[in-house]
Amino acid sequence: MSEYTITYIKNENPKEKPQSDQLSFGKYFTDHMFIQDYNPDRGWHNPRIVPYQPLTLDPAAIVFHYGQTVFEGLKAYRTKRDNIQLFRPDKNMERLNRSNDRLCIPQIDEEFAIDAIKHLVHIDQEWVPDAPGTSLYIRPFVISTEPYLGVSPSATYQFIVILSPVGAYYEAGINPVKIAVENQFVRAVQGGTGEAKTAGNYASSLKAQEIVSKEGYAQVLWLDGVEKKYIEEVGSMNVFFKINGEIVTPELNGSILEGVTRNSVIQMLKHWDLPVTERKITMEELYQHYQDGALEEAFGSGTAAVISPIGELAWEGHQMVINESKTGPIAKRLYETLTGIQYGTEDDIFNWTTKVSYK
Amino acid sequence: MSEYTITYIKNENPKEKPQSDQLSFGKYFTDHMFIQDYNPDRGWHNPRIVPYQPLTLDPAAIVFHYGQTVFEGLKAYRTKRDNIQLFRPDKNMERLNRSNDRLCIPQIDEEFAIDAIKHLVHIDQEWVPDAPGTSLYIRPFVISTEPYLGVSPSATYQFIVILSPVGAYYEAGINPVKIAVENQFVRAVQGGTGEAKTAGNYASSLKAQEIVSKEGYAQVLWLDGVEKKYIEEVGSMNVFFKINGEIVTPELNGSILEGVTRNSVIQMLKHWDLPVTERKITMEELYQHYQDGALEEAFGSGTAAVISPIGELAWEGHQMVINESKTGPIAKRLYETLTGIQYGTEDDIFNWTTKVSYK
Repeated sequence: MSEYTITYIKNENPKEKPQSDQLSFGKYFTDHMFIQDYNPDRGWHNPRIVPYQPLTLDPAAIVFHYGQTVFEGLKAYRTKRDNIQLFRPDKNMERLNRSNDRLCIPQIDEEFAIDAIKHLVHIDQEWVPDAPGTSLYIRPFVISTEPYLGVSPSATYQFIVILSPVGAYYEAGINPVKIAVENQFVRAVQGGTGEAKTAGNYASSLKAQEIVSKEGYAQVLWLDGVEKKYIEEVGSMNVFFKINGEIVTPELNGSILEGVTRNSVIQMLKHWDLPVTERKITMEELYQHYQDGALEEAFGSGTAAVISPIGELAWEGHQMVINESKTGPIAKRLYETLTGIQYGTEDDIFNWTTKVSYK
Repeated sequence: MSEYTITYIKNENPKEKPQSDQLSFGKYFTDHMFIQDYNPDRGWHNPRIVPYQPLTLDPAAIVFHYGQTVFEGLKAYRTKRDNIQLFRPDKNMERLNRSNDRLCIPQIDEEFAIDAIKHLVHIDQEWVPDAPGTSLYIRPFVISTEPYLGVSPSATYQFIVILSPVGAYYEAGINPVKIAVENQFVRAVQGGTGEAKTAGNYASSLKAQEIVSKEGYAQVLWLDGVEKKYIEEVGSMNVFFKINGEIVTPELNGSILEGVTRNSVIQMLKHWDLPVTERKITMEELYQHYQDGALEEAFGSGTAAVISPIGELAWEGHQMVINESKTGPIAKRLYETLTGIQYGTEDDIFNWTTKVSYK
């Protein structure tokens, strides 16, 4: 049997599926999961789809102590023709391997991983919800499993994929959010792990998020960890600003996560012949544009919300109300076009989607 | 039954203990472990000592994805009178709670945790090795267990303590190491999680450590993440320099871990009426002192090695050989005094040790 043959053990006790209108994010999980093991002798081996089940790990496993782990997030969408499709999974698997490199985790076979994801989604296809705005969230992740308390890369790993049906991000259509600029806490710094999708970045963000939530803000906007001047990203999304007709997003610098949606937004804006620039931008500059009336729109981009308009930005005592707290035309057009491609109601001009098929 | 009554389930199949001369670090684990659960209704509850066993966790548990976890490290020592004692466990539990605060994890009861550790060590007392320089490493840690993919603090946790008999850090007595100053990667930054003992800091350090290991260095010396000028810590230890008779260590700044051994070193130096200063120090300054012949000693401090003399420091092409690569008199005196207190051969003038007794 090839190392690439996926064993399948069917779940004989499938769960009851939640109603489409009761889905939130990341609370329900499907009947099956994908697991593959790594050891130095065999490399990645024993790929299998098994009933969704607890992981059994030695309490000394490195992941618990030293956080050697990476993850990805993407979605499967049910189209109006009742096909199921993924959006740019190749970009997620490329990034997973870049994260693996930063965390000293062995590279995975990207093509095989996409096949495994498709296989798993196919088996649990009835879990892909069909209500507007709903989807099946896909969470691939790698954990370090060696029971060893020395601070060094693990000898053994598991690559796991779990699936979670998720509700519409906006219950009443796309809707602007209030964001607070974070001045005390730092998410990441150049030379750190900011551009990797790894647990520590998110652990680090919990405290700031907890504080601003109590003050009524949906997320924080992170500044650079060095000078606390330059805009990096917002919550777990990348961020865009429309200034005097030009769309600006912070350039990748080693501490900003390279979002798949960010990349898609840039490509789409260029396709529309709209001016889009990746460059450094400070909060000082943004506030100046705001005062001059040149800040026309602000929005985040990410897998969960696709596009999240920013209606209000709080910074050093200033309450910046952007576009009268309404969704701007660029944010709306991007949201409709990208979700249209994802749900198969718009032409997929860039070949971004791939059908889930079972070999 | 009180929430503070520890249930005990004896391991009826004890393992064979490794030979004292075959111990390394963190590879062997004892017959029992301590576990306590947390949920919002009951708080910390159900403390129990059970046979050492795998943890069973939902694959969506927050610890795997967002690294919400903290840990501690301390040791139990077998004295010449065949007592078993701990070194300053109160400092470790204080720090565990500071780490908990930064990571949005509920506070633990420090006194009860120390009692639980003593209880566990007492049960596995035969695992405390007796060869010179050996000890029983104690690893308390908290993991977030809620199965939820939203980025937010977990509703549930486990506080766990495992034990590992460890060998002498220096097989042939205290011995200077070669250290490389890290210029590319960053361990932590102010506003991040550097002063917390949490997984992400260690995940972030793996890559730099991997690179310098290949070049023959034992550890890296971390500079600050903002200007990459100021000395922070070395590997997983704090660092001290003797310059013109004065002992200097980087001042705590939010990104340096507050070491228990660091604190003990400072207290001991003051007791000896030796000048010790906590202040900012740059690599530029250190190199200048080196060239002037004023850099007399350099050493790290930490639970694993206690005191680790630095014989050579590589920085921007300079190979700084310190004290002819020999252990200096201050490092030697600190090592002998601190290990003397830990193993009960020196008077415990500060009341730092506490006997393991079973109530």
